[in-house]
Amino acid sequence: MRYVRNITDVGHLEHDADEGEDKVAKKARLEQLEPMEIVQRYLNNYHRDMEALGVLSPSIEPHASGHIIEQIEYIKKILDAGFAYESCGSVYFDVEKYNKEHHYGKLSGRNIEDLISKTRTLDGQDEKRNPLDFALWKKAAPEHIMHWPSPWSEGFPGWHLECSVMGMKYLGETFDIHGGGMDLKFPHHECEIAQSVAALGHEAVKLWMHNNMITINGKKMGKSYGNFITLEQFFSGDHPALEKAYDPMVIRFFVLQAHYRSTVDFSNAALQGAEKALEKMTETYKRLQHLAAAEKQSVELPDFMTRAYEAMDDDLNTPQVIAVLFEAAKYVNEAADGKIALTAEQLSSLRLLFDVFLVQLLGIRMAETGGDEKATKALGGAMDLLLQIRAKAKAEKDWATSDLIRDELSRLGFSIKDTKNGAEWSIK
Amino acid sequence: MRYVRNITDVGHLEHDADEGEDKVAKKARLEQLEPMEIVQRYLNNYHRDMEALGVLSPSIEPHASGHIIEQIEYIKKILDAGFAYESCGSVYFDVEKYNKEHHYGKLSGRNIEDLISKTRTLDGQDEKRNPLDFALWKKAAPEHIMHWPSPWSEGFPGWHLECSVMGMKYLGETFDIHGGGMDLKFPHHECEIAQSVAALGHEAVKLWMHNNMITINGKKMGKSYGNFITLEQFFSGDHPALEKAYDPMVIRFFVLQAHYRSTVDFSNAALQGAEKALEKMTETYKRLQHLAAAEKQSVELPDFMTRAYEAMDDDLNTPQVIAVLFEAAKYVNEAADGKIALTAEQLSSLRLLFDVFLVQLLGIRMAETGGDEKATKALGGAMDLLLQIRAKAKAEKDWATSDLIRDELSRLGFSIKDTKNGAEWSIK
Repeated sequence: MRYVRNITDVGHLEHDADEGEDKVAKKARLEQLEPMEIVQRYLNNYHRDMEALGVLSPSIEPHASGHIIEQIEYIKKILDAGFAYESCGSVYFDVEKYNKEHHYGKLSGRNIEDLISKTRTLDGQDEKRNPLDFALWKKAAPEHIMHWPSPWSEGFPGWHLECSVMGMKYLGETFDIHGGGMDLKFPHHECEIAQSVAALGHEAVKLWMHNNMITINGKKMGKSYGNFITLEQFFSGDHPALEKAYDPMVIRFFVLQAHYRSTVDFSNAALQGAEKALEKMTETYKRLQHLAAAEKQSVELPDFMTRAYEAMDDDLNTPQVIAVLFEAAKYVNEAADGKIALTAEQLSSLRLLFDVFLVQLLGIRMAETGGDEKATKALGGAMDLLLQIRAKAKAEKDWATSDLIRDELSRLGFSIKDTKNGAEWSIK
Repeated sequence: MRYVRNITDVGHLEHDADEGEDKVAKKARLEQLEPMEIVQRYLNNYHRDMEALGVLSPSIEPHASGHIIEQIEYIKKILDAGFAYESCGSVYFDVEKYNKEHHYGKLSGRNIEDLISKTRTLDGQDEKRNPLDFALWKKAAPEHIMHWPSPWSEGFPGWHLECSVMGMKYLGETFDIHGGGMDLKFPHHECEIAQSVAALGHEAVKLWMHNNMITINGKKMGKSYGNFITLEQFFSGDHPALEKAYDPMVIRFFVLQAHYRSTVDFSNAALQGAEKALEKMTETYKRLQHLAAAEKQSVELPDFMTRAYEAMDDDLNTPQVIAVLFEAAKYVNEAADGKIALTAEQLSSLRLLFDVFLVQLLGIRMAETGGDEKATKALGGAMDLLLQIRAKAKAEKDWATSDLIRDELSRLGFSIKDTKNGAEWSIK
């Protein structure tokens, strides 16, 4: 499996149309930094946040600015195929001509007549034969910081081009899956399809997968709405709209509770709900590890494993997988509370279920696995000792000591639970 | 301050001469991977290791393969200046001609006659006018995976070129400091100087700084010597030559104990020495935080701050800085042991010294600051409670409980020290 995630460090203009300033260049101008300094900073933060969320890193992470030659070569192919034209040093894709032979808009179910009727006039549009045409190469205005030599002008590639070009370079002329947010379906992905068909004579992507947008308290999130919250702010709680900090695993669990094709609404209530659910899940996972097996079972277990796999096979239905895990959790906790008896075989099938689906597949880090293991291990030992002393004190009716331990621990944020198998502890 | 660290993902040939296979391409061929997949994997590991070591990330991290156009433009400048020539689709720098007007070898104190007498014949050298000439552009052999179009051939840039080109692009025609290992002084940095002078008419670098090499048990480290140990292996201890795992901060502290211009010999004994020294330093730092101030001082403190700054001003003499910190540590520990009395003013000057030089400048993370803070905090609370119970038990002559706590804690790897200010603990 090869996973390519490209970094758009050039060519993404403000209006997602072919006009306006380059987004990176603008930020660089405002902050008086070298454009690539901006890119590096955002890229570092992005990597840091993705790692916190446990998102696997891609096999290759190519930069658009690092593939100018490849983009120029690709533009030549489209020109040779007759689906593009040069105009005032820029090169535009001829959508109308393309649409005569192919369907521009097939992915988003649009058709060109409706599109034309909707398009408003943009400045500099006169360069184009048709308002729907999009730039493959833009001649750089004098104040434009980032530009490269090309057969047509000192300029930069259009932002739809990089994906087709780097996709072909690193995944081949045809590849399996192309992901992206729903907001990129049109025009970005339509333009990618048109570029591939024009340059290669066939589509490059076998399957398009689009995740839905998130909303904040019911409103679309966006700088313009003033309700923009970064992952870093979610992790630190440092944002007026946030009641508290949310652990990256809580965010991850919360997102997986919704299907990737449905919208997710971020609200403090919803996040704290996910937090509680994850705590319950983690608690159950820990209890499952230390659960002792019974000689003979008192109940049959449903075939959770098959049901979880079926849920994933159903277009990655992660909410369904989580529902299965919670149903399985009931059995674990009843066994831990001595209400039912599970055999070694049943326990190991439950452990496999949680390890495969919760840890490996949903990628939820269990508290034990992450963090400073030295301190975590030491803490485990110290807590066992404290609870042992508390048990001893209770047995000897030394209430002063046992109360001291109980009160101090709860003051420190531990919660202690007495079960028939002894006391269990966790950090609130 | 802008810090640029470039990634050589193309053009670095096996023999550091102009022949042999591209290092990245070779690994890709052997592992049947896309070259950039290799680069990404090594880059991810590199970033992970640098972060573990607390090395600050650069402002910009440009890739050689992402600047082919810029390198082609730079080669044109050198050709126009008459210091390079095309030969069989490759372009070579004319060292002999350059040396008539400038001194090739000035940085490493070599002169061209000695160099010529030393050079052995390489295959394909016939393309060159002189064995010392180095490639600016190499025509790609048919089996070569990575190649780009150029005015001279489908090929790739020579590996000396990228640094001059990306340095100029991101730091300007003249910049302050160029770092690197001593092994790069010749020929790499000599060639960089020649390229800048040829293309720009002046040198680009004001100050060259070269760090010395490390050795393993007295031997030069290298794949060929079979004594190659990666940082990851040092951190995990997973290497036959390593007696144990070494914390990244131990490695960092160990390296800083030597001056950057002297060699560092990695041996288990030396690393374990550094480990002990760092533990002592960390211990001292912790005690300093909780030290109570005396009404009046019993001793004068030397002006450690000035001496530490003077050491850094002396070509980054970090071993001297560490010596100053250890001298200061003596005072901290004597105060903690009640042997001397320090005023609040003296304590805050000591705290400032350790924070500025140990933490901020040498970048040594103190145990408290790193790791899973939740577990670390909770552990602190639990240990305080345990030691409180132990003190109580002792007072009540409940030796059973006090012994249980002492024995269990040492079994868990804690070391407990009774001081006149109460018991101190640490994890072994």
